[in-house]
Amino acid sequence: MPERAVGIALLGGGVVGSGVIKILADQRELLRRRTGLTFDIRHVVVRDPKKHAELHASLPITTDAAKAIDDPKVEIVVELIGGTTTAGEWIERAIKHGKPVVTANKSLLAARGAELFTLAKKHNTAIAFEASCGGGIPIIDALSKGLIANRIDALVGIVNGTCNVILTRMTRNGWSYAKALEEAQKAGFAEADPSLDVSGRDAAQKLALLASLAFNARVVESDIHVEGVDKIQPADINFAGELGYVIKLLAIAERAPQGSGFRVQGSAARNSLNPEPSSSLTSMSSVVSSLRAEGRTLNPLYLRVHPTLVHKDDVLAEVSGSFNAISVYGHALGHALFYGRGAGQMPTASAVVADLVSVALGTTPLAFKQLQIFPDATSPADVLPIEELQSRYYIRLMARDVPGVMAEVTEALGRDKISLSAVLQRESDEGQYVPVVITTHMANEGAMRQALKAIDSLKTIQPPSVCLRIIDQPREFGGG
Amino acid sequence: MPERAVGIALLGGGVVGSGVIKILADQRELLRRRTGLTFDIRHVVVRDPKKHAELHASLPITTDAAKAIDDPKVEIVVELIGGTTTAGEWIERAIKHGKPVVTANKSLLAARGAELFTLAKKHNTAIAFEASCGGGIPIIDALSKGLIANRIDALVGIVNGTCNVILTRMTRNGWSYAKALEEAQKAGFAEADPSLDVSGRDAAQKLALLASLAFNARVVESDIHVEGVDKIQPADINFAGELGYVIKLLAIAERAPQGSGFRVQGSAARNSLNPEPSSSLTSMSSVVSSLRAEGRTLNPLYLRVHPTLVHKDDVLAEVSGSFNAISVYGHALGHALFYGRGAGQMPTASAVVADLVSVALGTTPLAFKQLQIFPDATSPADVLPIEELQSRYYIRLMARDVPGVMAEVTEALGRDKISLSAVLQRESDEGQYVPVVITTHMANEGAMRQALKAIDSLKTIQPPSVCLRIIDQPREFGGG
Repeated sequence: MPERAVGIALLGGGVVGSGVIKILADQRELLRRRTGLTFDIRHVVVRDPKKHAELHASLPITTDAAKAIDDPKVEIVVELIGGTTTAGEWIERAIKHGKPVVTANKSLLAARGAELFTLAKKHNTAIAFEASCGGGIPIIDALSKGLIANRIDALVGIVNGTCNVILTRMTRNGWSYAKALEEAQKAGFAEADPSLDVSGRDAAQKLALLASLAFNARVVESDIHVEGVDKIQPADINFAGELGYVIKLLAIAERAPQGSGFRVQGSAARNSLNPEPSSSLTSMSSVVSSLRAEGRTLNPLYLRVHPTLVHKDDVLAEVSGSFNAISVYGHALGHALFYGRGAGQMPTASAVVADLVSVALGTTPLAFKQLQIFPDATSPADVLPIEELQSRYYIRLMARDVPGVMAEVTEALGRDKISLSAVLQRESDEGQYVPVVITTHMANEGAMRQALKAIDSLKTIQPPSVCLRIIDQPREFGGG
Repeated sequence: MPERAVGIALLGGGVVGSGVIKILADQRELLRRRTGLTFDIRHVVVRDPKKHAELHASLPITTDAAKAIDDPKVEIVVELIGGTTTAGEWIERAIKHGKPVVTANKSLLAARGAELFTLAKKHNTAIAFEASCGGGIPIIDALSKGLIANRIDALVGIVNGTCNVILTRMTRNGWSYAKALEEAQKAGFAEADPSLDVSGRDAAQKLALLASLAFNARVVESDIHVEGVDKIQPADINFAGELGYVIKLLAIAERAPQGSGFRVQGSAARNSLNPEPSSSLTSMSSVVSSLRAEGRTLNPLYLRVHPTLVHKDDVLAEVSGSFNAISVYGHALGHALFYGRGAGQMPTASAVVADLVSVALGTTPLAFKQLQIFPDATSPADVLPIEELQSRYYIRLMARDVPGVMAEVTEALGRDKISLSAVLQRESDEGQYVPVVITTHMANEGAMRQALKAIDSLKTIQPPSVCLRIIDQPREFGGG
């Protein structure tokens, strides 16, 4: 193969941009040997060239994005500035020139993916976005290539490093949320304004992209039920620990059951890396009938991001700090897990450069043109309301008069057909509010909410009670 | 996109072949919707059509491979018969017709990969082999695409399901090797002749393929130091457990250190899913100098398959039964792990169909043509002799007179500069041979072998002593 130089424009010279510059310089020979390609950075577009003068002394720094994008010697445009407005305009400009775009911008794709993909196809070019989810983990590629023969039943991921760093620190060090956030900010794991991360929105944007690919249905951020980590209290982390669970922010997309039964894991189930089947079969015929009555046959999905009690034997419980992991359940493949650094300069740059190679080789454009899995080619997802979800729950009540209140609480739960799995209760001085922790068997989310409302209106309960969902080794999801 | 029907010939109608037939039938609509492709099985070539008469009543079963391969309506040939002779001939025939081949045949590729890849390029066609390693895990794709920007420092995998089922059963049920093998055979996890698996050769063939891609150097089976699981005794599994380890058959390829130091994990290191750095820096300057003196500068590799003591906190320790997992350490990505079912009908068929799609879309042929990472385009690996390896070791001696013998053993180890990390010893009746278990700090394999020889010649030792390597969370390998 003859060698070929590929001219690129880098929009953004920040953390990830610098990582891309570093890989293209340090690994130039490795990339040339492996791919026959060399990448020439023709422009690095930044807002303030002074900030970058020393760092990239030898690089063509500019503030003129239009000139960089329009340069005929630029074949591929790499967008790493983030945000939706300017990034969107620049990407559109590149696409209209027929230039393929490599981007790590999950917010933009979650908001305007279908539109931009349509535009790219119209101009016979492509968008590559491996770096938008899971950092350096090649999960976009796995979903759009390696797992393409699978009907995906569920996708369960830890996809936000900031939240995982905070929860890991709260769990290991016994820190409060505020202290864990502060330390994460000091260590560079959390932004000065951490709200996009800790609210769960960043995870939801990633889930929108991943679920769109996995289920071939257009998922937007607003389809997803989102709860963040900012209300997690050390008490709940401790109680979860006593019960054998770790609290993780999970992003979950799963097909609603369409067949005869819904397999869920019993609480006695073993490690998720354990191949022995130990699942219990819970009948879901009532849910299925109600879905059918409403005419929902198009792949209905539950989509949610929330703090979750994950069994300690589940491999996701061990994904700590800034690491990410995505479990995927395919009908043929079974359970597969993809694990690695979900953020950070070099892991993200690793994905950007992989995309650069695939775009330059022509494989990404070829797949982009033909595959009908991207949101421009699919219909909006049929999203089930969270109230219809079946889950196990963890409830922490603050009760004044424990013996008396338990009868009332049990009654409230029983009215909504929620049965108890375990109760944990501490001794305390009389008259004080004491925590009572209850875990339930599988129950309906709507019923759970109703019961919680009733419980919180009891005179002996100090509202609001804490309610979190439990996931026991999601080895097998979905039906059909 | 217009839809397109792709004619294929299936060579082999056995377990995986039937899985491919099943996916192409059951998921025809899903594949059509996702890819715009439908796959038409034009021939299923089998040895004995009677065996398949009922199963595939509606399929074009034949014994005539030449006719099937030569059929102008066949675009892609899928080879699933295994073995090297006939499979090799048929693949050559397809390639000479310019027809791309999808294969799961690791033995053939490990033996004749370079030759077949060269032939395929000569005839302007491609070989796709995702199913050859790790079953349904898209590890070939990850190494040749997603991780292409990384200098890979190490690859550590559990890649043989049979051995992992046997070791899992020995560990969990306390079974002997013979009993675990027998049960694995009954359950369909081991062949009637299990020698290819239990000897470690199957894992070595897979490692040859994976290491070739990861390190862009031609690795053949004979480059790899191989020890199987057939000599593992319950006693060692139990002692390992007491020391906090699980015995796993690992396939390991790692770059020898080229820089200033070699990072290895101390025994106190935490979980490998733990991002906190806790590694200790061991100087390897002597090894580096000796390498340089010998003029070995071309990416020297250690390549080995052997039973290994894996720390219980390492995620690989939790990969049980027929599951596979491959840890990859890239210079930019850091640690990534790919986990899933490494064998079996549907997982393997999942990978075969993914390859069919990529070949039909044209992406695999395009990458195959341009990437220079396949063994036809690379030089033979510079393989270091196992004697130069640095590792920690587990030794079990059978000693008659423990107090007396310990001085002699320690002296033998000390002569070869091997220092002890821990000693475990059981009470027993006097005069009996009792097990003494020793773990060492990092030591040189050649020195270890020399010391073992000296120990086994002691009068108070009943030879042969057992010696296994220990790996403590291989979070960071290699240097440079």
